[in-house]
Amino acid sequence: MKHHRTEELADLATGMFEDIRALSRDAAGVSRPAFSSIETETLDYLATRARAEGLCVTEDTGRNLLFSLPEHKNSDSFTIIGSHVDSVPMGGNYDGLAGVIAGLIVLIAARRGRRHLSRPVKVLAMRGEESAWFGACYIGSKLLTGTLPEGEFNAAHKGDGRPLRAHLEDLGIDIVPVKAHRPLCDLSRIEAYLELHIEQGPLLVERNIPAAVVTGIRGNFRYRDSRCIGQAGHSGAVPRAYRHDPVLAFAELMHRLDGTWQHLLNTGQDLVLTSGVVGTDPTRHAIARIPDEIGFSLDIRSQDTETLDRMRAYLKGEMADIARSRGVRFELGPEVAVAPALMDPKLVAKLETAMEKVTGEAFSMASGGGHDAAIFAQAGVPSGMVFVRNRNGSHNPDEAMEIADFMVGVDILSTFLEASR
Amino acid sequence: MKHHRTEELADLATGMFEDIRALSRDAAGVSRPAFSSIETETLDYLATRARAEGLCVTEDTGRNLLFSLPEHKNSDSFTIIGSHVDSVPMGGNYDGLAGVIAGLIVLIAARRGRRHLSRPVKVLAMRGEESAWFGACYIGSKLLTGTLPEGEFNAAHKGDGRPLRAHLEDLGIDIVPVKAHRPLCDLSRIEAYLELHIEQGPLLVERNIPAAVVTGIRGNFRYRDSRCIGQAGHSGAVPRAYRHDPVLAFAELMHRLDGTWQHLLNTGQDLVLTSGVVGTDPTRHAIARIPDEIGFSLDIRSQDTETLDRMRAYLKGEMADIARSRGVRFELGPEVAVAPALMDPKLVAKLETAMEKVTGEAFSMASGGGHDAAIFAQAGVPSGMVFVRNRNGSHNPDEAMEIADFMVGVDILSTFLEASR
Repeated sequence: MKHHRTEELADLATGMFEDIRALSRDAAGVSRPAFSSIETETLDYLATRARAEGLCVTEDTGRNLLFSLPEHKNSDSFTIIGSHVDSVPMGGNYDGLAGVIAGLIVLIAARRGRRHLSRPVKVLAMRGEESAWFGACYIGSKLLTGTLPEGEFNAAHKGDGRPLRAHLEDLGIDIVPVKAHRPLCDLSRIEAYLELHIEQGPLLVERNIPAAVVTGIRGNFRYRDSRCIGQAGHSGAVPRAYRHDPVLAFAELMHRLDGTWQHLLNTGQDLVLTSGVVGTDPTRHAIARIPDEIGFSLDIRSQDTETLDRMRAYLKGEMADIARSRGVRFELGPEVAVAPALMDPKLVAKLETAMEKVTGEAFSMASGGGHDAAIFAQAGVPSGMVFVRNRNGSHNPDEAMEIADFMVGVDILSTFLEASR
Repeated sequence: MKHHRTEELADLATGMFEDIRALSRDAAGVSRPAFSSIETETLDYLATRARAEGLCVTEDTGRNLLFSLPEHKNSDSFTIIGSHVDSVPMGGNYDGLAGVIAGLIVLIAARRGRRHLSRPVKVLAMRGEESAWFGACYIGSKLLTGTLPEGEFNAAHKGDGRPLRAHLEDLGIDIVPVKAHRPLCDLSRIEAYLELHIEQGPLLVERNIPAAVVTGIRGNFRYRDSRCIGQAGHSGAVPRAYRHDPVLAFAELMHRLDGTWQHLLNTGQDLVLTSGVVGTDPTRHAIARIPDEIGFSLDIRSQDTETLDRMRAYLKGEMADIARSRGVRFELGPEVAVAPALMDPKLVAKLETAMEKVTGEAFSMASGGGHDAAIFAQAGVPSGMVFVRNRNGSHNPDEAMEIADFMVGVDILSTFLEASR
């Protein structure tokens, strides 16, 4: 009986995914640009489907959509199930959209009397989360929480070059409160913000688990343009003792950081560390020449501020130590940092309980990518997330979430909402 | 008395260096292209100066010049003091030329009755040693020893694109014996080949020693285009256990090789190791992405074949080990190898004795760069070299040899030739 119901709802979800894939298809994958007409069409399609199920649909002043059961339309306070409908250019169909459709399925299951909602719920379908379009990310949720920085307000669209402000005005969004950093919604009415999202890494695939409760969204500190500066020389003629080889210094730094990373994991800390851009200077380097410098980037993430601070201090200490022993100089360059956002511990615990009911065993993990949930959490809204197993990462046409896994995630949300309070 | 003589000869050398610098001056430093008219003018200048000193001057079939005392002109066998007069484009004035002028000063000192030559000596001023012009190096000495490979015979000039063959024919050099790999000179008549050269590394500057006896010329094996191939992924979302990060694998490889290098030095072996070209792919890399691969070059040199073989085996073993533990793949790519050339041990010992007489203490070292002496040694001619202290390396306009150091090198050669047999 329950199995039959789940299949019916899974087919409903599949139909919505495929219709939206069709309306936003690109040369590869899908493209749903932030604050674009395709984004609006996607929201219009969802509104039509929701109304057909007897749900209430309203638009907020950020031109996002809110869906609810008719009896919850005017509730003073509510839980939000939110996510975004935009995608990166030629991206996958599930990053963002899965969270919105998950919320709708939760409401439809309740509307059809198959599940019960113990508290009012609103599903929020947001615009403009992906940074691919304006450089800035989480624009939709930053508008709602009044946290869009001045600089991002003027960020140029990667396609037409016009500022974000102009794109917002095209949609009729009032930019006065945005500039004044006034939230477009009343945050005090939101009891909790929940978000379902595909996992962007391979952990659930590797561990063979359909879904997970997210404990926090990793913050990071990044150096886009670090350098190690040594001294050029003849590759054959300079003895080791008189070398100041920046490549070997960089190798030692990365190898030490890698060792510390493993140690921190062994002691239960959360951390990932990447040097994605590395290179000697093509205008000067040669096989038979000790290079004078090597450039590199660093991206270090953790859900714990303390771990990030410890790694930053450790990085600088190791650099100073290697600089001393090898006679090289490290220049870190400007740091860009994003604070971690821990999910609300009570919500995490309750979601874990719900997951245990659904799958027999709870599983929790940190999120490596950023999400709208981080913006709500940082704005003081108790937030929680559910990840759904997904192959091939996100932001590419090969995203591969299975509907059965998606329905496990939906079931975790429904089970949580049945039990809540 | 001896001091006065040395000053007179030093002034003579300085005059010759400066005249040739003037006739080959370029926008920066000097340019004396291989097998060019500037090279010929340089040889003509040296011939004029030598004749003025009463020396005999003859041209060989490679259009190199041979200088000798009149009484040694027709000797059946002789010691050669050789080097080259060409330079790299916008190079320094001393790389090559110092060895030729050193030989001339040895002859002039003997001609003036200030030193004695116990055996006949010919000074050989060669063309075409620098690889900057045709890609191939040591062309002049390869012609003399009949060892120019077929491929280099057709090597295109970096400037006019014409093959080496055409440039040789322009000078009237008979290419028939060259193609047949017949030496242009009778190697059996050469008792020993001696060469003075500026040091191309910083060792003598760092150790505060004016000159050195060279024990051998390092051979090498090189990989121009090696790669470590891992797996791309989201920098925040892929846990360490599921990463296949080629940058961290490369860092571990270089760090391990560096440790082995230090160990081999500690146990008395000769080795240098350089990765001069390193980089992730600019068309694919990003700060927030684990790169899928990193490219790198390797240049590993030693004067001992056994050490080179050991390092090659060690390199491949480490790569296999790291590939296994990190789930990455190394592709070394094509290897290019040059055999080491040990200097003749008896000549080394006698040159050390001569150096001890001149400076009070002998000092020996390996040569990191290649030299014509390696070609003669590989052709079976007992060979020896003397290095002269030099700042700022070679192949650049900042080469800085001091004449006083040069005269120490000349004195070592004269002292050796007085004592020989």
